[in-house]
Amino acid sequence: MSLPSEFELIRRYFAPLAGPGSLGLTDDAAVLEPRPGWSLVATTDTVIAGVHFLNHDPPDLVARKALRVNLSDLAAMGAEPLGYLLVTALPASTDEGWIARFTRGLSQDQAEFAIPLLGGDTASTPGPLSLTITALGQVESGRALLRSTGRPGDRVYVSGTLGDGAFGLKVAKGGGADLPGPARAYLLDRYRLPRPRLALGRKLVGLASAAIDVSDGLAADLGHVCEASGVGAVVEAARLPLSPAARAIIEAGEGSLVEAVTGGDDYELLFTAPAEAKPSLAHIAAELDLPLTRLGEIRAEPGLAVLDAEGRPLALGVGGYRHF
Amino acid sequence: MSLPSEFELIRRYFAPLAGPGSLGLTDDAAVLEPRPGWSLVATTDTVIAGVHFLNHDPPDLVARKALRVNLSDLAAMGAEPLGYLLVTALPASTDEGWIARFTRGLSQDQAEFAIPLLGGDTASTPGPLSLTITALGQVESGRALLRSTGRPGDRVYVSGTLGDGAFGLKVAKGGGADLPGPARAYLLDRYRLPRPRLALGRKLVGLASAAIDVSDGLAADLGHVCEASGVGAVVEAARLPLSPAARAIIEAGEGSLVEAVTGGDDYELLFTAPAEAKPSLAHIAAELDLPLTRLGEIRAEPGLAVLDAEGRPLALGVGGYRHF
Repeated sequence: MSLPSEFELIRRYFAPLAGPGSLGLTDDAAVLEPRPGWSLVATTDTVIAGVHFLNHDPPDLVARKALRVNLSDLAAMGAEPLGYLLVTALPASTDEGWIARFTRGLSQDQAEFAIPLLGGDTASTPGPLSLTITALGQVESGRALLRSTGRPGDRVYVSGTLGDGAFGLKVAKGGGADLPGPARAYLLDRYRLPRPRLALGRKLVGLASAAIDVSDGLAADLGHVCEASGVGAVVEAARLPLSPAARAIIEAGEGSLVEAVTGGDDYELLFTAPAEAKPSLAHIAAELDLPLTRLGEIRAEPGLAVLDAEGRPLALGVGGYRHF
Repeated sequence: MSLPSEFELIRRYFAPLAGPGSLGLTDDAAVLEPRPGWSLVATTDTVIAGVHFLNHDPPDLVARKALRVNLSDLAAMGAEPLGYLLVTALPASTDEGWIARFTRGLSQDQAEFAIPLLGGDTASTPGPLSLTITALGQVESGRALLRSTGRPGDRVYVSGTLGDGAFGLKVAKGGGADLPGPARAYLLDRYRLPRPRLALGRKLVGLASAAIDVSDGLAADLGHVCEASGVGAVVEAARLPLSPAARAIIEAGEGSLVEAVTGGDDYELLFTAPAEAKPSLAHIAAELDLPLTRLGEIRAEPGLAVLDAEGRPLALGVGGYRHF
């Protein structure tokens, strides 16, 4: 194995990331103090080389995306992050430089989101490099944003722009070659480095009726909310917030509105809110400098309808449309 | 892939394991309510086929050991378990029957330890099957049992018997063929199905000065306590609690006392306590029907000495002795 021992890896690269509660990564478990009257929120996600990222992807961005998809789940619950545990399974061929760049990425995001490493495990594996992160957060008891509490008449909103994740993946695979350089760079960055909407999630506590983060795509994730809430939804595709770069790739004929509706990896917050929340949401959008776009409405009848500009159901293809 | 979709796997096998706080495994994260005035305790461990277990190992025992090694970490902190998150990375060749037997094992231990599945992630992998569990528990704030708080003059104790894990691994590899069947079965069971000492851990809160679970072996784990506490220890090998089966394999010439000192995988609690705790510990041992054996003493001078019957340092070999 070209790597130092597990003990030495921890000492050199992981211990410097450890914060309060981690007990210096030298105890059996981490100890945390959620605020009195707040609930603990816990989520876990794994990424595997060759499945979720590529071996030649920049290690710092692999680290930051792995962390951020977990933070996005906390954001969707309205939680503020407390820290995370990290499991690394490393093949013998792993270069120590990879670990150094990987942990630099973690360090950068720990500073950005003000969270420590709390604990973890390091193992060697005969398989591909894989990373499992468990993010822990806290939210006022009884006030977590759920998927199951959308109500007929609520409006459906999404933050930021949609489709950038899917189009960024195309660019990562060599697509969009005729786009202007800055547009390609923007889409690639959006794919590689999600922005977990933690500040928005916190502000939606007590305001939104239901929330989810857009990881599987608008259609699938709105479907999850409808299914969990026992309701349906109608959204207008023409309302979809698209970035200039997303518009450019669609105009270049290398992307479509349907892909923006069904593509995943945007990590924006998709949420429902009653009509009277409108002025508060406008205030939050201005405060965070983050567009909050009304896409449509929740209705009592089950099923999700995505309508085109003429009010006809958009054909979403197999992946995007869910019957339930 | 011979498996149903991730969605279907969750519905069939994992959702029935989900408990309060899991939100039916259909939300972005789990929500937990630690008791007021208690801290949250979190630990994570990964096991990989071909590294930590074998492909032909019984799936229910793989599940239960993966869960129990995490519960053992909670026990070593004095925590009571609240539940766990599970990440499964499954190769395409995974048989659905494997998953069924695996989740039956989880179900059995959830009943035994009164804990629910809280959340998780399921991914397909081109590598070996691997499992990552994050166990969450709670302990009275400020009272977690740490490794770093052993003091000179404290006595060193261990629960149960030592060496069974290491000797059980030998039996799993075909060793101990001349032992009586029940002795072989006992050792194999001890290796495959650790007993996390959760009840003992809870009773040691406020009584023990430091604690750790024996996963790396007595010598290494007592070394961890000494290092974290800035102290040393002397233990007498003749005091080591050995099971009748461990004595039998040593008498058969297939094992040694040194292996019982250095072998891992016992998942007993190794702890330190002041002299005045003796009567309380005797009471706890009787109440739990679990031997608590005094092995030696913490001293101010750094270093770990394991003495033989003549009071000379036992030669532990490279793996077992740590200079620090």
